Amino acid sequence: MIDNRLMRGNPLNIDLDKITWKRVLDVEDRALRRIVVGLGGKLEGGVIRETGFDIAVASEVMAILALTTSLQDMRERFGRTVIGYTNDKKPVTAEQIGAAGAMAVLMKDALRPNLLQTLENTPALVHAGPFANIAHGNSSILADLIGIKCGDYLFTESGFGADIGAEKFFNIKCRYSGLRPDAAVLVVTTRALKAHSGHYRIIAGKPLPKELLESNLPDIEAGASNMIKQIENIKLHGITPVVAINAFNGDHREEYELIQRIAVEAGALGAAVTHHHGKGGAGAIELGEMVEDAAKESNKFDFLYDEKQPIKTKIETIARKIYGAAAVSYTPQAETQIRDYEASGFGQLPMCMAKTHLSLSHDPELKGAPSGFTLPIRELRLSAGAGFVTALCGDIRTMPGFSEHPAAEAIELDEDGNVVGLF
Amino acid sequence: MIDNRLMRGNPLNIDLDKITWKRVLDVEDRALRRIVVGLGGKLEGGVIRETGFDIAVASEVMAILALTTSLQDMRERFGRTVIGYTNDKKPVTAEQIGAAGAMAVLMKDALRPNLLQTLENTPALVHAGPFANIAHGNSSILADLIGIKCGDYLFTESGFGADIGAEKFFNIKCRYSGLRPDAAVLVVTTRALKAHSGHYRIIAGKPLPKELLESNLPDIEAGASNMIKQIENIKLHGITPVVAINAFNGDHREEYELIQRIAVEAGALGAAVTHHHGKGGAGAIELGEMVEDAAKESNKFDFLYDEKQPIKTKIETIARKIYGAAAVSYTPQAETQIRDYEASGFGQLPMCMAKTHLSLSHDPELKGAPSGFTLPIRELRLSAGAGFVTALCGDIRTMPGFSEHPAAEAIELDEDGNVVGLF
Amino acid sequence: MIDNRLMRGNPLNIDLDKITWKRVLDVEDRALRRIVVGLGGKLEGGVIRETGFDIAVASEVMAILALTTSLQDMRERFGRTVIGYTNDKKPVTAEQIGAAGAMAVLMKDALRPNLLQTLENTPALVHAGPFANIAHGNSSILADLIGIKCGDYLFTESGFGADIGAEKFFNIKCRYSGLRPDAAVLVVTTRALKAHSGHYRIIAGKPLPKELLESNLPDIEAGASNMIKQIENIKLHGITPVVAINAFNGDHREEYELIQRIAVEAGALGAAVTHHHGKGGAGAIELGEMVEDAAKESNKFDFLYDEKQPIKTKIETIARKIYGAAAVSYTPQAETQIRDYEASGFGQLPMCMAKTHLSLSHDPELKGAPSGFTLPIRELRLSAGAGFVTALCGDIRTMPGFSEHPAAEAIELDEDGNVVGLF
Amino acid sequence: MIDNRLMRGNPLNIDLDKITWKRVLDVEDRALRRIVVGLGGKLEGGVIRETGFDIAVASEVMAILALTTSLQDMRERFGRTVIGYTNDKKPVTAEQIGAAGAMAVLMKDALRPNLLQTLENTPALVHAGPFANIAHGNSSILADLIGIKCGDYLFTESGFGADIGAEKFFNIKCRYSGLRPDAAVLVVTTRALKAHSGHYRIIAGKPLPKELLESNLPDIEAGASNMIKQIENIKLHGITPVVAINAFNGDHREEYELIQRIAVEAGALGAAVTHHHGKGGAGAIELGEMVEDAAKESNKFDFLYDEKQPIKTKIETIARKIYGAAAVSYTPQAETQIRDYEASGFGQLPMCMAKTHLSLSHDPELKGAPSGFTLPIRELRLSAGAGFVTALCGDIRTMPGFSEHPAAEAIELDEDGNVVGLF
Repeated sequence: MIDNRLMRGNPLNIDLDKITWKRVLDVEDRALRRIVVGLGGKLEGGVIRETGFDIAVASEVMAILALTTSLQDMRERFGRTVIGYTNDKKPVTAEQIGAAGAMAVLMKDALRPNLLQTLENTPALVHAGPFANIAHGNSSILADLIGIKCGDYLFTESGFGADIGAEKFFNIKCRYSGLRPDAAVLVVTTRALKAHSGHYRIIAGKPLPKELLESNLPDIEAGASNMIKQIENIKLHGITPVVAINAFNGDHREEYELIQRIAVEAGALGAAVTHHHGKGGAGAIELGEMVEDAAKESNKFDFLYDEKQPIKTKIETIARKIYGAAAVSYTPQAETQIRDYEASGFGQLPMCMAKTHLSLSHDPELKGAPSGFTLPIRELRLSAGAGFVTALCGDIRTMPGFSEHPAAEAIELDEDGNVVGLF
Repeated sequence: MIDNRLMRGNPLNIDLDKITWKRVLDVEDRALRRIVVGLGGKLEGGVIRETGFDIAVASEVMAILALTTSLQDMRERFGRTVIGYTNDKKPVTAEQIGAAGAMAVLMKDALRPNLLQTLENTPALVHAGPFANIAHGNSSILADLIGIKCGDYLFTESGFGADIGAEKFFNIKCRYSGLRPDAAVLVVTTRALKAHSGHYRIIAGKPLPKELLESNLPDIEAGASNMIKQIENIKLHGITPVVAINAFNGDHREEYELIQRIAVEAGALGAAVTHHHGKGGAGAIELGEMVEDAAKESNKFDFLYDEKQPIKTKIETIARKIYGAAAVSYTPQAETQIRDYEASGFGQLPMCMAKTHLSLSHDPELKGAPSGFTLPIRELRLSAGAGFVTALCGDIRTMPGFSEHPAAEAIELDEDGNVVGLF
Repeated sequence: MIDNRLMRGNPLNIDLDKITWKRVLDVEDRALRRIVVGLGGKLEGGVIRETGFDIAVASEVMAILALTTSLQDMRERFGRTVIGYTNDKKPVTAEQIGAAGAMAVLMKDALRPNLLQTLENTPALVHAGPFANIAHGNSSILADLIGIKCGDYLFTESGFGADIGAEKFFNIKCRYSGLRPDAAVLVVTTRALKAHSGHYRIIAGKPLPKELLESNLPDIEAGASNMIKQIENIKLHGITPVVAINAFNGDHREEYELIQRIAVEAGALGAAVTHHHGKGGAGAIELGEMVEDAAKESNKFDFLYDEKQPIKTKIETIARKIYGAAAVSYTPQAETQIRDYEASGFGQLPMCMAKTHLSLSHDPELKGAPSGFTLPIRELRLSAGAGFVTALCGDIRTMPGFSEHPAAEAIELDEDGNVVGLF
Repeated sequence: MIDNRLMRGNPLNIDLDKITWKRVLDVEDRALRRIVVGLGGKLEGGVIRETGFDIAVASEVMAILALTTSLQDMRERFGRTVIGYTNDKKPVTAEQIGAAGAMAVLMKDALRPNLLQTLENTPALVHAGPFANIAHGNSSILADLIGIKCGDYLFTESGFGADIGAEKFFNIKCRYSGLRPDAAVLVVTTRALKAHSGHYRIIAGKPLPKELLESNLPDIEAGASNMIKQIENIKLHGITPVVAINAFNGDHREEYELIQRIAVEAGALGAAVTHHHGKGGAGAIELGEMVEDAAKESNKFDFLYDEKQPIKTKIETIARKIYGAAAVSYTPQAETQIRDYEASGFGQLPMCMAKTHLSLSHDPELKGAPSGFTLPIRELRLSAGAGFVTALCGDIRTMPGFSEHPAAEAIELDEDGNVVGLF
């Protein structure tokens, strides 16, 4: 609808260089990151311009679905989304281009959470899927509101990496839902903590290195610096953390014990080895009891920052307190955007950090709990409808690309028509 | 997966200029017709090249879904689809780039026809949706096979425009299904026949001109030339046609009578006025009885052309016999493609004409039964997996664009959260 | 200056798709034929659009230099050049974008013809260089006016291919100069006429086939159809032609005699074998005397067509009478341009045909004097300042490309610093 | 020739993303900074890729012309120029693509310096024109060698901004010529020094602010910090500086005196007010005598840095010692290039800083002698034939763009055909 307006004489006087809204596809497609559309003249292609695609989960539409509290609220948020700027630098909204109504109609049925159940018939609500590395990383407020009303306890996931998923849960989702958590579960594995020692080379799509599966207490100790920092981060928000050590076959008991000792020393109420993957509910009873205890602790939940602060103050608070950065740097583009957003009245929104989940820093190679680094802010993006400003850290990209051998190459039907090769 | 191969050193030596496979989206998007992808260098975007999007219904994947007869056959057809050519001019298939298995898995569940029912509980199978103007325009063979097995009569739709929908039903779908029709129903309306007089200006999205709704026997007579040609076209395939006059409120009886007279004179077994929209099955009893009679006639069904003929012979047979063209012209691009396809062994496939449905010719302005025109073939496209060669006539495009005021501008939620503005 | 205007808010409301003025370079550069400029946003690149480069000789600036008669006239012509159209379809001139003054200043010194001399001290004026295949193919009017004033006879070249060079001399250059020729010299060689038999395969940059250098009267006879048509074409303009057979070492006397006989039968006043390349003026005395005689003949010079005729009439007159075409076809783009030019008042200009010099037709493979072919008009271009409309025939391109091994690869300095490899 | 190779199967296996050689034009043309060439497929445009144009003076060809010492040396340097890299990261030279010979032939005549003379018949050699902000900023070594041989003193210009022109004279040109200067003249004006106070807003193409022309000793004093730093920079290279105060009508004597006092205090041998613009040689006698004295001083000329040092060491030496920077930052692209150049053996070349001439820093707004700033290095470019590595500082661009009203708009012919509006 934006390009159609441009072709029809551009009545809103939209600046072609300042259209921030991209198309999305729910496919990884590197070639669509930066494209030129509209070739061939007006009749063939409309108006030529540079743009690109993001992956669907990074769309503001997904964020709005996850943060809204009603159909009416969702409709209004779509109307407030800023799709670009006029040649005299005023924001242009989806309302102004006549798209917000149709967006709401398209998303009307998506607004209803999906009710599933576990093998033991515990209800599970599955709703909305923004990735924590490139989006705000939390399931929907609506599903949480329904779940809380219907059960004794609601567990909600804030994936992946507590430094990104949980931080945004506390500072974005709780701000909009008005809900406050009673306790936090931090999930760890022996292999992930050993990997955080920095002594192993793990490649996506390849088997784990054999040494990683052997018992190695010094590496657990080295990598536990990451867990300690994550515990500290949760406590910074006034919440009591419990550690769940997700057990795998072949794990070593002495590693469990070391992790438990370190976790409690760092301030966790406890650390339970959990076997729910193999044993169902029975495998998580110890964890459940610890969470019950944690939820009884006095709750001093608070936000990490005041959303009324300047954008740079908010970014720097997160960077220093949560990530352990020494400083923050900004590209000239980011500097301009911060200035523009604050001038247009969008400076008082919470921040949504887009950052790798493979490190507390922006650099996937920095393992454990790095410090002394400078966090580079490359670009900002306004999600006026969702209600946050995204800051892209380092090389993080909002459209992933295929690896050398994408999973699709292995996916096949066997002779009986069954699907093989998915995992 | 094509672009990922290019980025990884292009091991199949694919000619970047000769990649025929496009991305598709199920949205009208003029700006995506001709694009440059992959800007920004290898790490950012892979390999830069020119390409474009088609609308999903024009995809060979849709055609394969509609023409396949089993999961195994669909898998094989995906494997045979040609996505482009090597630098030494050999075809490259989806099999070779490792995509065919994943395509089959994605489409596995789509292969099952949807069983719906009418208000009177007659079963109705809804399956596959290629548009007749830009694709082969028929619902799936699989649904037909199921329907035939379960009922006394199977009605299958071949929309829109019998010169495109029915022609492809006879010569593409029947060739692959091995089924032969017993009779044909040609649907007309008084307003459509009057419009075919060429005396009215009808604009999509605007109300019909008031004069079109008044009784006008001379215009019926003039426009009926189109019906006469469509009856002739059906009989050319050895099938007995019945005309269904789809009744609208405010129609004029004398117009019905004129149409009935002309239809029978032109060779239809009969012409029944039908009221099924208003009265359900009871409104179509007369038509049903006519169809029963037509199906009892001796059936001399035959294809219009032998698929082993040269491409130009097949195109010219359709153009002259079905459309009434005096000649066919080819752009230099089309000439080269015909030569290349025949040299690569793809010359012996049936033809799929991509042509406007607003005229028997390629030109939407030529109403009735035009003759003496030259049909311009702009471009050909090979669908080796679906099993046909598409010929694009005149200006027909495989990615539509929005009109000045797209429907989305009117779509909205009302105060109670109901959808309004869809029609 | 066009792109700068676009970047500065486009005050003239220029339609980005309808900018007809291209940049030029005096280098063959295929990659610049179709480009996208202005990437990177306004500050970096201004406004993104599709455009391309032509080779300098195809520029309207070159045509104006060759057709002008004074500095003042040149300045005015620059002002009249149309660089594109507004969004409401009005022409935009170089005057309107403020470029015409600077163009005139840049070309001020170029306006003076270069006076050289032959080895025998005959003065020779060298001035302007539009190629006849892609431009109007004649040296400057100003040099001719000076030459005529200073000598007894002025010879002016109209290269290459009399069907293009001479036709434009008669119908464009003479129309603007007001001068009328007294006689015409048609230059032929034995090898070129044999080549026009169509029995030889000649490749640019490779040695001539050995057989072409042997005596072959049947091939001369076959290829002479081309010479006969060129003689006829000159006589169509009311001028008496003389044929100059440009002698090469190793030519065969019997071939000369056959050519002479055919030329005279076809209506040439005579046909002289010339040796000026080897012997200077002495080698061309016979030719000179024939030209003297021809110039004394009664002169009925007239234009081939009235410039006030519709564009298609003018094109078809040239195509049928000069090239021997049976018909002319137009792409949809050409049809639109003809309609637009005539609507804007540019329909009454002489035509400048852009066509291969390797055939009387548009197809380099059609040798001799082909007939029965359809001349395809791909595109038109307006040169409102130069005062003609160019029609691009078939595949002719206004930016050449390098061959597989461009001459530059062989060009080198030898050990003494001399240039080698130029020829 | 690069694009032709790509089109012909790319036999050298050149990485399309890593072609560093750009086309040049001697015109300011913003729209050509970033372009996509080669659209339309192989036959139309060859191979599509992203590239751009630089202005001719920024070309390595210009640098080679200015730094070469003979035809043979120039030919070899052209052969060594690196035009890009193979897919396996090896440099590709102009020699390898067969272009170096033709480049040398094209430049053969350009190699001869132009001998002009002043109004008083002093010989003046004018040869080569690289701009100091985007190139190495010095006239040719060959002209200097000729001049030195023919006269008592040779003055050679190193424009604009002694921090860029003179620094590159000392460290690039002297390194390749083997010549060493005897003295240095630093040219200042009262208005430029006042402008360096930072109290005035000067806009290119607009008249100077009136206040700038009034006497203002405090502003002279403030802005003289720039002169003091330039004097220091010259002395850092072991050379004695003399200051020439270039007199303008309306200058104020007390300002001259203040400048003279500050210059001598800062270490200049003297500071002479010069009137050569108005009075010719007589107006520069005092300056001449000072230069004679300076040339007699003991000469301790030395380079600022050892070219064998790492690239970053060289850049940081220039940044800190000459510009007054506190630190240097590098974009990720620059980091990669430094690593690649050093790995390919190009790390041991002198540096050519591309930097604004409007400040000692990279930021045109920082006047006087700024300190404490971080110099941002955006990108490096290798000139392997010229023999240096260029470092682009901040926003400096190698293709300028037109201002809102380019000079061309005012350039015109008057009624008598004279050029007006050039200045």
